[in-house]
Amino acid sequence: MKCRKCGREAGFNMRRQKLALCAEHYLEWFPSQVERAIHKYKMFTPGDKVLVAVSGGKDSLALWDVLLDLGYHAEGLYIGLGIDGGFGYSRLSLEKIEGFMATRPGAVLHTVDIPQTYGESVPQVARRKHRGRGKPCAVCGLIKRYVMNRVASEGHFDVLATGHNLDDEVAVLFGNTLHWQIGYLARQAPVLEERDGLACKVKPLCRLYERETAAYAIVKGIDYIYEECPHAVGATTNRYKELLNQLELDSPGSKLQFYITFLKAKEEGLFQQAAEQVALHPCQNCGQPTTAPGICTFCRLW
Amino acid sequence: MKCRKCGREAGFNMRRQKLALCAEHYLEWFPSQVERAIHKYKMFTPGDKVLVAVSGGKDSLALWDVLLDLGYHAEGLYIGLGIDGGFGYSRLSLEKIEGFMATRPGAVLHTVDIPQTYGESVPQVARRKHRGRGKPCAVCGLIKRYVMNRVASEGHFDVLATGHNLDDEVAVLFGNTLHWQIGYLARQAPVLEERDGLACKVKPLCRLYERETAAYAIVKGIDYIYEECPHAVGATTNRYKELLNQLELDSPGSKLQFYITFLKAKEEGLFQQAAEQVALHPCQNCGQPTTAPGICTFCRLW
Repeated sequence: MKCRKCGREAGFNMRRQKLALCAEHYLEWFPSQVERAIHKYKMFTPGDKVLVAVSGGKDSLALWDVLLDLGYHAEGLYIGLGIDGGFGYSRLSLEKIEGFMATRPGAVLHTVDIPQTYGESVPQVARRKHRGRGKPCAVCGLIKRYVMNRVASEGHFDVLATGHNLDDEVAVLFGNTLHWQIGYLARQAPVLEERDGLACKVKPLCRLYERETAAYAIVKGIDYIYEECPHAVGATTNRYKELLNQLELDSPGSKLQFYITFLKAKEEGLFQQAAEQVALHPCQNCGQPTTAPGICTFCRLW
Repeated sequence: MKCRKCGREAGFNMRRQKLALCAEHYLEWFPSQVERAIHKYKMFTPGDKVLVAVSGGKDSLALWDVLLDLGYHAEGLYIGLGIDGGFGYSRLSLEKIEGFMATRPGAVLHTVDIPQTYGESVPQVARRKHRGRGKPCAVCGLIKRYVMNRVASEGHFDVLATGHNLDDEVAVLFGNTLHWQIGYLARQAPVLEERDGLACKVKPLCRLYERETAAYAIVKGIDYIYEECPHAVGATTNRYKELLNQLELDSPGSKLQFYITFLKAKEEGLFQQAAEQVALHPCQNCGQPTTAPGICTFCRLW
């Protein structure tokens, strides 16, 4: 295979769009795709302050890297969850982020360490609250959403960007579709607008395959954490990913088409009825927006 | 495993509802499920004339068998497609139906032989029309829908019943969902109401798994054609079925839940907007309802 741009040996082949590229042109193509998504979905402009949630994984580091290269004002947020899993998952995550920052002079990182700030690690809270049948994932999601939103709000960021890639989005979409969870389907989008103190959330990698962000990180020399969270092993979303990989193998481009036609159907008003929003009000304890009466679910954890 | 009804050794285990049954009670359970779907979706009543499309396969013969046992007025319709596939597929199909009828004195079968009536077999028409990239499936579907509708109309049948099982329905649903084909999703249902000369169509097996109808046919001693249509081999729908089987294996009941939650979302009006119907008028040649201007697509084939 030859690179479509320069005719040299191509190391990358995006089967879904029959595009082969050499490493040099891959490093041009990938950011251009991110930029395209930012424009297409009107995520933010160069004047906006962007908070990037970074976990130390390939997606979030690739995203931060691309946003900085593209000249956006992008600061990082690392949430220390206190997860060990036998190999110091949280510690290792932070080390990767610090390694990345060493190559990026001037990059700003906000850090919220959950055990230090709230007295307990995520697995500890989850065990105490008996939520999620031994899996801390539900509690972890709640905590991360809360902290991201609070930091975005307190730091006056215009948007909060996460590294969700196409495979992530499609796995969630698949799960929601399998159960026809209309409310969730109505809320799944590349951009969730700001409202009532909830930060605007954007997913600039939503049209890029997981293997494409991995390839970008590797070629760009970004050292990231390979291990996934030890609690995510065996998660339903991962089983969906395996099925969807099979589908993609049979018919390249299936995932992207599933996602894009979903967004088109939404645009045409398919879930409009379900998109009516529940009212938010400030938590009586922390002041952050919540749908829960009185005190928000986050404050109830502690 | 023990039969839930009588405690004897159970030969059948419906994992999705944790129901184990012996052969005797399976032969009670299966028709009760068909009856339940007929009532639940208001498909037809004992006074109605039902035309059952029979192919000689397990589903359609099981359906006809159950409807006769339940006391419904159910006549069969066999459409001879003129498909050979190296083993006389169409001939063998008819033989199985005739074998079934030999055990069912008084059963009435309507037969329409496509090559005899229209001068060409389905594969011949398909080749001549260059439709469907060498696969006659699109033309075959068109021809079958036309003939079923014409026979139902001319014979004054109240409904046309087909043997689509849950696996069939879910594979189609999956394909339509993967591409978010809203128009198709709006029209997929256990009952398609009669309108403008188009017969009412019902699918009484839509909540029964393929393996359940196969088990019924086998235990009931119905000899059916095992081979699927030679043209269906490798069809996209079959690839979807494999994926969905994997999903079901991981999580029993997934298919049924996908289908039932879809119907519920529809009931709540999800596809209402897309369900607006195109106007039908009689074909200038055959008088059957069509959306095509002037002469219908079926008449254009010949």
